[in-house]
Amino acid sequence: MDFKRDGGNGGGPADYKLPEFIVPGFKASGVVAGIKKNGRKDLALILSDLPASSAALFTTNKVKAAPVILGIERIKKGVSRGVVVNSGNANACTGKNGMKAALAMTSYIERALGLKEGEILVSSTGVIGVPLPYEKVEAAVPALIKGLSYDGLAPATEAIMTTDAFPKAAVKEIRIGSKTVTIGGIAKGAGMICPNMATLLSYFLTDAKIKTSVLKKALKIAVDASFNSILVDNDTSTNDTSMIFANGASGVEIKDGTPGYRAFVKALSEVSITLAQMIVRDGEGATRFLEISVKGAASDKDAKKGAKTVAESMLVKTAFFGGDPNWGRILAALGRAGIALKEEKVRIAFNGVEVVRNGLDTGKETEAADAIKTRDVSVEINLKSGKGASKLWTTDLSYEYVKINSAYRT
Amino acid sequence: MDFKRDGGNGGGPADYKLPEFIVPGFKASGVVAGIKKNGRKDLALILSDLPASSAALFTTNKVKAAPVILGIERIKKGVSRGVVVNSGNANACTGKNGMKAALAMTSYIERALGLKEGEILVSSTGVIGVPLPYEKVEAAVPALIKGLSYDGLAPATEAIMTTDAFPKAAVKEIRIGSKTVTIGGIAKGAGMICPNMATLLSYFLTDAKIKTSVLKKALKIAVDASFNSILVDNDTSTNDTSMIFANGASGVEIKDGTPGYRAFVKALSEVSITLAQMIVRDGEGATRFLEISVKGAASDKDAKKGAKTVAESMLVKTAFFGGDPNWGRILAALGRAGIALKEEKVRIAFNGVEVVRNGLDTGKETEAADAIKTRDVSVEINLKSGKGASKLWTTDLSYEYVKINSAYRT
Repeated sequence: MDFKRDGGNGGGPADYKLPEFIVPGFKASGVVAGIKKNGRKDLALILSDLPASSAALFTTNKVKAAPVILGIERIKKGVSRGVVVNSGNANACTGKNGMKAALAMTSYIERALGLKEGEILVSSTGVIGVPLPYEKVEAAVPALIKGLSYDGLAPATEAIMTTDAFPKAAVKEIRIGSKTVTIGGIAKGAGMICPNMATLLSYFLTDAKIKTSVLKKALKIAVDASFNSILVDNDTSTNDTSMIFANGASGVEIKDGTPGYRAFVKALSEVSITLAQMIVRDGEGATRFLEISVKGAASDKDAKKGAKTVAESMLVKTAFFGGDPNWGRILAALGRAGIALKEEKVRIAFNGVEVVRNGLDTGKETEAADAIKTRDVSVEINLKSGKGASKLWTTDLSYEYVKINSAYRT
Repeated sequence: MDFKRDGGNGGGPADYKLPEFIVPGFKASGVVAGIKKNGRKDLALILSDLPASSAALFTTNKVKAAPVILGIERIKKGVSRGVVVNSGNANACTGKNGMKAALAMTSYIERALGLKEGEILVSSTGVIGVPLPYEKVEAAVPALIKGLSYDGLAPATEAIMTTDAFPKAAVKEIRIGSKTVTIGGIAKGAGMICPNMATLLSYFLTDAKIKTSVLKKALKIAVDASFNSILVDNDTSTNDTSMIFANGASGVEIKDGTPGYRAFVKALSEVSITLAQMIVRDGEGATRFLEISVKGAASDKDAKKGAKTVAESMLVKTAFFGGDPNWGRILAALGRAGIALKEEKVRIAFNGVEVVRNGLDTGKETEAADAIKTRDVSVEINLKSGKGASKLWTTDLSYEYVKINSAYRT
């Protein structure tokens, strides 16, 4: 996996390390529909052989793209056959025609496969405010369906990318009794993204048999520990979506409150954290991967709030870009985070070098500057005021970020 | 006034357009104490001939510099003789020695002038976490006091600057009956600032006679309309301070609820808004001055929240740096602002060119891109959902911002 993007969309499909795994009972496909102007793959389909328990989490942004609005409606049934995803156009801020386009996309697939209306979900990502050319989707559907195969997750992952420098996929297997359950995931996203804005899309597939209500609970836990714990900049998208499909092909049922459930949630969270960290590493213009860990807070909520305020601070992010162990900016961010804080108790360490003890400079700045000459930097904050803890991942803020995001859309 | 800094601290005192006005009954002075490493002025004193009604607002950051902690205590009396300010060192995160240093600074002045303990307030701005060399202040006190004069606000303004590219001062006179009341203000601040972080300091002087409680109310209104309505980045400082001194030298008394009071508040707000806008124009690396106006919100609070979320968005700020009329980023920011919002009602205009009507693209992007090729850009947002309105001022986000704030502290 490349850490830094090599400009634009990376070096092209040939350079991508494509995900290679199968989740039993799921076929996938990815093709060129011509929505992206660069001729890359832009239409993906994930299809379960069997009706699958389905759950989803969508953006909390009040401006929601049409596919999100449709998804919120369709997911209520708790069962679906899969999802069609296009990149190159977000189908957001597109009014009534947006909903027409989202419905059209799903019905092309449903009709071609002989499914009932509502059995296919839809996501879109790309420019916003531009009508989605859904006639291009219609024309590409035969190829999309022809391409369906059990090892089709690689082209599907490629087809959901926008400014991603590399495709993002992860898989875990767990043993339950004598049987194996597979949990796979694919995602797209790279900071918050030109040409318009980012979207975080992620799709989880499992061959476990699991009730929709339990599946939804597991998804929420995994997303909180992963996609809700990363922060590249402080914008959220009109299109953010996480979906999970459980088709039961393994014959293993996961019931709430059992050891199997706990193992399932743990594995799902691990897959999700792996994907989320990949997204941070692919953050626009990122030169450093920062882990912000807050311990000793009055509550977990306080810890998360503190970590978030530090991670959001443009002064903290630019300092790390410059390799400056500027703890004053971190202390100041904690101070305005709206959390319980006793300055005189705070400890801060960068990659293990303690720069602040009892709220005061330890004089180890030179040592710390040396210690953070690394791609991955751990920022450990101990507030020594309680048992609350939280961890999140973010990037520095570089010239390249400004460059990518200030480029005029063409 | 220069719009862009010309690197570092500007071209030096010779290039500054220094403030030139007198507020009757106030002397001031500014000298070199040797706290700044570059040999520039770094110690200022503002002194009222008479005991002055005094009020102040301090940072809400929980990490407060020693001079702020001392100020919160001393301002309770409601009367003082003035304030001593150093630049080059914030005296923040300096533990018990910090309070010792803050007290020492005030007592040097109090003793030299034969004042009682507690009659002088103190502010500091500059690097944090470094002990304040208050022996340098002690050595400079004789020159500081010798330099006191009625036209000393210019050197005082210069002495409170840190990364400011130009000094910031403004004055208004109002007629009350047959008499004139003068309201002057000086300020420092430029974005949130290297080497460590910014501080917004402002000092208002008036020869009106006004009760402390009324003065405090007026200051709060003025600061809300000005310093609390600007946003360069989303960091607040350990040292932010606004103080006002009213010495009654004009013989005019301003009583609460009178036309004189309203005229006073209006003039004070105007002085304060002028200073605040100067700070935005001096924002680090700023190439554009953005006015974000939200109308038609469900409440003023919603309007302010919406404007703030738009102004804080790194995606919005980088788009303006690139001259991109990217309304999608604005709509998305409004969507996550946590305010009442109906996408299909929203209107957005850039410098008068309507880019979004009823939540949809108007197709005027080229026209809008032409219209925003200006230093000052007005972003008008109408939510058409109520009567709430708010306005705030911010800057774009440029390479230069990243450069200034990532530079290793030396």
